[in-house]
Amino acid sequence: MTIHELILKNRSYRRFYQDVKIDLNTLKDLVELSRLSASGANIQPLKYILSSEPEKNGQIFKNLAWAAYLKNWPGPEDGERPAAYIIVLGDKRLKESFGYDPGIAVQSMLLGAVEKGLGGCIIGSISRDSLRKDLNIPDQLEILLVIALGKPKETVVIETIGSNGVIKYWRDDKGVHHVPKRSIEELIAG
Amino acid sequence: MTIHELILKNRSYRRFYQDVKIDLNTLKDLVELSRLSASGANIQPLKYILSSEPEKNGQIFKNLAWAAYLKNWPGPEDGERPAAYIIVLGDKRLKESFGYDPGIAVQSMLLGAVEKGLGGCIIGSISRDSLRKDLNIPDQLEILLVIALGKPKETVVIETIGSNGVIKYWRDDKGVHHVPKRSIEELIAG
Repeated sequence: MTIHELILKNRSYRRFYQDVKIDLNTLKDLVELSRLSASGANIQPLKYILSSEPEKNGQIFKNLAWAAYLKNWPGPEDGERPAAYIIVLGDKRLKESFGYDPGIAVQSMLLGAVEKGLGGCIIGSISRDSLRKDLNIPDQLEILLVIALGKPKETVVIETIGSNGVIKYWRDDKGVHHVPKRSIEELIAG
Repeated sequence: MTIHELILKNRSYRRFYQDVKIDLNTLKDLVELSRLSASGANIQPLKYILSSEPEKNGQIFKNLAWAAYLKNWPGPEDGERPAAYIIVLGDKRLKESFGYDPGIAVQSMLLGAVEKGLGGCIIGSISRDSLRKDLNIPDQLEILLVIALGKPKETVVIETIGSNGVIKYWRDDKGVHHVPKRSIEELIAG
């Protein structure tokens, strides 16, 4: 796959074939992609918690909020939940803030997931204190974001933003998820 | 190329074959990769200034600082400078802070550059006020970072961090650039 095809296929997926398991080695392959990616001043302050077991997955799932713009959808139901998670943490012993490192890292990992026939979603809306307690995460590791992973069970389509400028995604009556994107002309400032 | 090969090849390059030009359409292809990438709450607040002409390149170059750990190296000399730049900006009319979007965007663009036989470096050490004046960048666009691009003219090698824990990169007497990376065991916290 070209990088363009890979990025096109790398949509934010929120419903999965939950019974298609992802093993720990697959998650480690993804962390390896992050390990080899750029880090500001090469400090490499990110750490990762991996989860591919139903019990740990459940502990993570209950601390996440899904798809803020889909008001009537509380998140994936049992059977369509992620088969695995990678929690991205910032090690405060190494750095106070983590700059562009987490964005770079998650993009590497998600593109790796897509290449493996998987897909995922970056989740920033997390009950952090509760997740910290549930998984016994030490205080020096700041919880930055969670990547939910699985074999995608939904279709996601890119749309062009209309003249109303609305950027909220929506789901149609066939369950297809539509994401409006700004035109390239709007993005180029000079 | 697999994503692993692409990421391995995507090192931070700081010396280039300056005479190998990069045209504007190539830069637009890279912005397209960013356009199709994830954005927090889908707000898509990033904007881009593209430069592939010697004069504009010069105006950008003089506002950048290079490779903080190479104390005796002031940056690439004439002939080895970037052939193009993408300035990544945050549109403050759309959002106050830009979260993980810039990291995601630059990783997409750099992987695209590598696939095209190019390479680059993310530069955060920028004389922002001076660059804003030189390029007439409006106040509502926050200057986040600059991607320097070109056909790489240096070899970059990944090393494993030694027992001394030193993460500073170094250049050997043959001009090869060495970058120590933490082991995957150190990155996995649970």
